[in-house]
Amino acid sequence: MATAAAKNAIPNPAPAPQPKKRWSRLRALKRIIQLGAVGAVGYASYVVYQNRHPTEQKQFDPSKRTIVLLGTGWGAVSFLKKLNTDDFNVIIVSPRNYFLFTPLLPSCTVGTIELRSIMEPIRFITRHKSRNVKFYESECTDIDPESKTISITDVSDIKGAVSNTTIPYDYLVVAIGADNQTFGMAGVREHACFLKEIWDAQKIRTRLMDCVESAGFASQTPEEVSRLLHMVVVGGGPTGVEYAAELHDFLKDDLQIWYPELVDKLRITLVEALPNVLPMFSSQLIQYTERTFKQNNIEVLTKTMVKEVADKEIKVMDANKNMVSIPYGLLVWATGNCPRPLARKLMARLKEGGQSSPRGLLIDEYMRVAGAQDMYAIGDCTFTKYAPTAQVATQQGLYLASVFANLARIERGENRKISPFEYTHQGSLAYIGSDRAIADLPFLNGNVSVGGVATYVFWRSVYISNMFSFRNRFLVVGDWVKSRIFGRDVSRE
Amino acid sequence: MATAAAKNAIPNPAPAPQPKKRWSRLRALKRIIQLGAVGAVGYASYVVYQNRHPTEQKQFDPSKRTIVLLGTGWGAVSFLKKLNTDDFNVIIVSPRNYFLFTPLLPSCTVGTIELRSIMEPIRFITRHKSRNVKFYESECTDIDPESKTISITDVSDIKGAVSNTTIPYDYLVVAIGADNQTFGMAGVREHACFLKEIWDAQKIRTRLMDCVESAGFASQTPEEVSRLLHMVVVGGGPTGVEYAAELHDFLKDDLQIWYPELVDKLRITLVEALPNVLPMFSSQLIQYTERTFKQNNIEVLTKTMVKEVADKEIKVMDANKNMVSIPYGLLVWATGNCPRPLARKLMARLKEGGQSSPRGLLIDEYMRVAGAQDMYAIGDCTFTKYAPTAQVATQQGLYLASVFANLARIERGENRKISPFEYTHQGSLAYIGSDRAIADLPFLNGNVSVGGVATYVFWRSVYISNMFSFRNRFLVVGDWVKSRIFGRDVSRE
Repeated sequence: MATAAAKNAIPNPAPAPQPKKRWSRLRALKRIIQLGAVGAVGYASYVVYQNRHPTEQKQFDPSKRTIVLLGTGWGAVSFLKKLNTDDFNVIIVSPRNYFLFTPLLPSCTVGTIELRSIMEPIRFITRHKSRNVKFYESECTDIDPESKTISITDVSDIKGAVSNTTIPYDYLVVAIGADNQTFGMAGVREHACFLKEIWDAQKIRTRLMDCVESAGFASQTPEEVSRLLHMVVVGGGPTGVEYAAELHDFLKDDLQIWYPELVDKLRITLVEALPNVLPMFSSQLIQYTERTFKQNNIEVLTKTMVKEVADKEIKVMDANKNMVSIPYGLLVWATGNCPRPLARKLMARLKEGGQSSPRGLLIDEYMRVAGAQDMYAIGDCTFTKYAPTAQVATQQGLYLASVFANLARIERGENRKISPFEYTHQGSLAYIGSDRAIADLPFLNGNVSVGGVATYVFWRSVYISNMFSFRNRFLVVGDWVKSRIFGRDVSRE
Repeated sequence: MATAAAKNAIPNPAPAPQPKKRWSRLRALKRIIQLGAVGAVGYASYVVYQNRHPTEQKQFDPSKRTIVLLGTGWGAVSFLKKLNTDDFNVIIVSPRNYFLFTPLLPSCTVGTIELRSIMEPIRFITRHKSRNVKFYESECTDIDPESKTISITDVSDIKGAVSNTTIPYDYLVVAIGADNQTFGMAGVREHACFLKEIWDAQKIRTRLMDCVESAGFASQTPEEVSRLLHMVVVGGGPTGVEYAAELHDFLKDDLQIWYPELVDKLRITLVEALPNVLPMFSSQLIQYTERTFKQNNIEVLTKTMVKEVADKEIKVMDANKNMVSIPYGLLVWATGNCPRPLARKLMARLKEGGQSSPRGLLIDEYMRVAGAQDMYAIGDCTFTKYAPTAQVATQQGLYLASVFANLARIERGENRKISPFEYTHQGSLAYIGSDRAIADLPFLNGNVSVGGVATYVFWRSVYISNMFSFRNRFLVVGDWVKSRIFGRDVSRE
């Protein structure tokens, strides 16, 4: 089209000078935009092509040391991405053969985003390393720091004749994440839904629609309708808050249209033991969140401790120390982390070496596990002065890759020192519903706290730019557009 | 852009006549295309807006007769879409609160298309009817033609205090579909995957990746690798053939890239008891399919009967009457239909009224169930001279809606006759892998048989145009583009 317009201008012998200037400037702008668009599409095509056409990889080299990496979460994957596999053989052990972009998991519970859009198969990463990386989809059940071996077992439904084995390591990187904290309370694992893995989000989505459909069953009693449509979230951290926010959006944007007879009876309650939600945010943002939740009819019960969990109700001690029973249809439990059985086993084994905390593996500033040789740990399985966030795990993973780069240099006879790990906080973000988000961002030596619709746009762009692959970015943006245009799906899968 | 070019042409005082004519014609074409695009986008926006903004509905009218509709499949939904709810109250009972576009289910087993893209929530349809349509997500467990009531039960995980009840009907429409045919063979339900529902496709997708990952487990034995990577499909009808075809594409397009060490060991075998696959197609297309499968290394075992199904192998009697044992990793069972328990119960009850076939409900040419009053049946739960296909069920559903329109007219005192049901075969289509499809199309009084890449494009466009909603069309096309650009996901969910 541009060519047609340009050629057409050639036989023009005596145009008025004013329009020409204006038009030529406009035309130049148009050209620049067109060239930019062509360039962007070209670059994107190149990236996509490269991603789908990995090159030949070097084979395992017996003369190199072998790193066994446990996990495929934030810490493990950022470590893997940065690690130079020219210097090491790498074996990954994890029950999940994909990386999961956990911050967007609450959006998946109601279908704002589809789960597959925030999953990145681990092979999409390992196949692009210079050396072949082995991946065993299995769970590490034991670590023996003496013999430097680990035991792995295939925990999936389909097993081969060999489903248990031991693997030796030269270096071990423990990045297994954490388990859901239940405070040892009976009934939580049985009746509540967590929000950590793919299957958790799927279960919540199914149960939510199940509650709605069961409430709509022929001649259901009013008390049961009220119970089934009561969605209770325990835990006022970012996960609990974002889940409540997404649930509210789903209610307002979608259930309102398709289940008009039920939507007024649906209630959302957030239960938090502390005096307020989101303790990591500044106080004006906490107030802003609580105000927004009030507008959105999300009831927030602070200073409220869950004491018992049964299949249709929880018993809580409220702010006035009264025991109250809260009937629920769906219970989501997001009260933070506790160590996984494997981490606990390892901690017990290394107790004399200095593993004295029940809250996670103790590591030094170089990510070395206290009391063990050639063993490193990063992310939520460790207990450090930092919060157990994706941000910390990522920075630890990147740092650990540089530790290994240094080890390789030392191996080659170069003598260089590496400085200890330092965490740089990039800020805290949370989505609070109705197209509003909040952000606490470190700025110069102070802190900027913002909340609202603009922050929501910022929240989205930060998440998109933090996704590891172009593919995931494209898929998530596609899902956002899709759910904006067509609404969310209300099928019970 | 067009405006800029057009305005620029105005001060042009003396252009050569030739170019002007050519350019003005080109420009007119450009305008037409632009207007067309704007119109298409405008129309699409209007449709999407309308779909998401259903209007107020009339309430149930006690003076009108009540139709109870069992099912949300092809027959039920096409009936529902065409039925005029001004004339009747409608209650739908189905354990699935969505319509499923079953012909694309094989594509979902490997991620060419995502499951949610071929699901249409039933409320997206019922909310647009003129009168409120009640939907109970539950299973009909019994039909009593004497008292004209049905018993329903909530079979989902979450139940309210009321989870069983009976509902009276004035008219009953049975569109419950069929069960998977297992020929009463032990082990099939336990070890094989069917391909009829959402969860079947999900299970296959999970198991497939599970087989691949278990084959890649540390020091797996060669025999086990060979077994785990043997994908066996029983049944050479369109479902089995299309599944084998999709599996081959996944192998070639995706596993080849990400699991290069395993892909050569992956084998696909199709087992069929008859002398050839796809008996409903013309012989040259059968040969074309078998040739394509041979090129694609899909082994086809015809005249081979499955005799036993165990957890890791099946025993078959081959074409030479020898018993052979075939080890498998994944077994997909697609051998057709048999009546559901509810249909069998009803058939037994109406035996004296004329229900003499064990293969399904007998109906007359007006869809009336033999031996019952005010009861109709359509689709795969019936046994007629037609094949149990989506095409037949759809036409029966549409026809039945006109039967009810006639009933309403008779009610109003008009006296009109309706002609009996006649099925118009639109043709048979199947995807056979490597971007090739086959089609048998009735043409004038003959038949046109075509196969190849062009037919594949035709296959896609037929499916897209047969989807019930603009939303599903958009989603499926989006998925096709996505999997073409980025490849399929290899995560084990």
